[in-house]
Amino acid sequence: MKAMIITAFGGPEVFQAADWPKPVPQATELLVRIHAVALNPVDYKIRENGTWARVKPPAILGYDAAGVVEAVGANVTSFKPGDAVFYSPDIWGVPGACAEYHVVDEAIVAHKPKSLTFEEAAALPLVGMTAWDAMEFFQLRPGQTVLIHAAAGGVGSLAVQMAKAHGARVLGTCRGANRDLVRSLGADVAIDYRTEDVVQAVLRETGGAGVDAIYDTVGNDNLPRCIAVIKPFGRAMTCVGITAELPGALFKNVLLRYGFMERSRQKLDTLSVLVERGHIRPVIDSIIPLEQVADGHRRIQAGGVRGKIILRVAE
Amino acid sequence: MKAMIITAFGGPEVFQAADWPKPVPQATELLVRIHAVALNPVDYKIRENGTWARVKPPAILGYDAAGVVEAVGANVTSFKPGDAVFYSPDIWGVPGACAEYHVVDEAIVAHKPKSLTFEEAAALPLVGMTAWDAMEFFQLRPGQTVLIHAAAGGVGSLAVQMAKAHGARVLGTCRGANRDLVRSLGADVAIDYRTEDVVQAVLRETGGAGVDAIYDTVGNDNLPRCIAVIKPFGRAMTCVGITAELPGALFKNVLLRYGFMERSRQKLDTLSVLVERGHIRPVIDSIIPLEQVADGHRRIQAGGVRGKIILRVAE
Repeated sequence: MKAMIITAFGGPEVFQAADWPKPVPQATELLVRIHAVALNPVDYKIRENGTWARVKPPAILGYDAAGVVEAVGANVTSFKPGDAVFYSPDIWGVPGACAEYHVVDEAIVAHKPKSLTFEEAAALPLVGMTAWDAMEFFQLRPGQTVLIHAAAGGVGSLAVQMAKAHGARVLGTCRGANRDLVRSLGADVAIDYRTEDVVQAVLRETGGAGVDAIYDTVGNDNLPRCIAVIKPFGRAMTCVGITAELPGALFKNVLLRYGFMERSRQKLDTLSVLVERGHIRPVIDSIIPLEQVADGHRRIQAGGVRGKIILRVAE
Repeated sequence: MKAMIITAFGGPEVFQAADWPKPVPQATELLVRIHAVALNPVDYKIRENGTWARVKPPAILGYDAAGVVEAVGANVTSFKPGDAVFYSPDIWGVPGACAEYHVVDEAIVAHKPKSLTFEEAAALPLVGMTAWDAMEFFQLRPGQTVLIHAAAGGVGSLAVQMAKAHGARVLGTCRGANRDLVRSLGADVAIDYRTEDVVQAVLRETGGAGVDAIYDTVGNDNLPRCIAVIKPFGRAMTCVGITAELPGALFKNVLLRYGFMERSRQKLDTLSVLVERGHIRPVIDSIIPLEQVADGHRRIQAGGVRGKIILRVAE
């Protein structure tokens, strides 16, 4: 089969078109004909050095997929050939989806939402399940306020929509050029983090009260720098880790969730319901052929992408 | 009335016996004749420099009390003169209990457990409510394992007993001289943190599985150094703050609670139930006269105290 592989860890130039053995599904696995793959930051992190993810080049990356089931293992119970599916391939040392075919355990696969194209469906699993984990933790209610960082990004753009569906007031940070996008997703306030002090902007927009929840999808010192605006007993979540203590968190009884997304069909089915009821829609930056995966990596690493970059594998 | 006051921020020598105005209870307040006061680390932290707690010398410290209601404000509904009570006086710029009399809002006072002396009852409120906050967060179930730091200390000694009451397996850290005490409180394993590597000891005692919860009552780099033994989706709580990131917490989906105890009658009533059912008993290191409060501070700051130091104010 055709595949785009990395020949070594390194820059985008390590990608190469290759003829790769077509995988064979085991007892609980599906063989999926891939139609579309979405890129995520984890792709370039593994391309640069994927030792932590147990990836050994030559290897196929790609951790968001949509396609059609071509064959099923002997013990598969929930799918049959011809089913349209979407999922996030596991990362731990197994092949990704940047190829004509991919095998995956049925436990982490769901039926594709009918109203979405393959490209749209591929845009959802990894960022959607990640954002949903945050919602499960925040337990937002009408009347509450949440601060969502990188609100124009893959995870942030879905978190904004989900938080609105919960009835919360949403403050999102983004680049100035993406403020319209963030507001169109439902954010009540879009804060340009490059021209405004985020802490001051949040205090101004909340009358000094601060927020009930903070979602950090940026990492490093982002959460320590903005924890000042969380209310007592507020909830903070990071999906990327933090590099410092949280000043004042003790006296405020802050609850901090470190969240590294785990895959499940149940979460994907939840995303489908949210799509079908009109609560969320994937934000797609662009659709490019699989062969241009290296260009996609370059754009994600440059920053400022609006939603997801999709690789088209088959029509 | 007689009181032991601090004349300035500084060492234990700033304590002085004084004649102080007897306070008058406001509408929702009680005037309490103090029988016993317990010392906590917060006492010496405020004595050294209590600006953060809005304390201005000359001032009365003392944040655990038991005594008898002598008079009540016009709107008090739950107490009458003659009632034996216990509570933790608020710290924020209002007088503590190291005196013959103290006024306190009825909202943070409860009836003293009948089976406890005044000295025993004074040993419970601050550490008991703090430890109970951790239990509410951990939600321990039979079959789970918890690591409790400073298990011979005020908070730790109660947390060990509460965790056992929940059916959990308890690993406690302490000095070698306190291992018998910690085991007598119900700990399954007492780890001497000065002669053993705590991480290695926990892995040995759990067959490499680690623990479901970690309670940090030590602070600084204590939690970062032992977070390696927490299981995926484990819960960690600090009641003293941490000074670094938690290595590996992201991939394990750690839930971290910063817990600064808030006072309520409901929590005190819960402690009474636990006492009356035999689940917890206060650990008392020693009982000394109120006038020797400076000696009590010196002993707490030197470390190695077994449970609480109690100041006797009245027979």
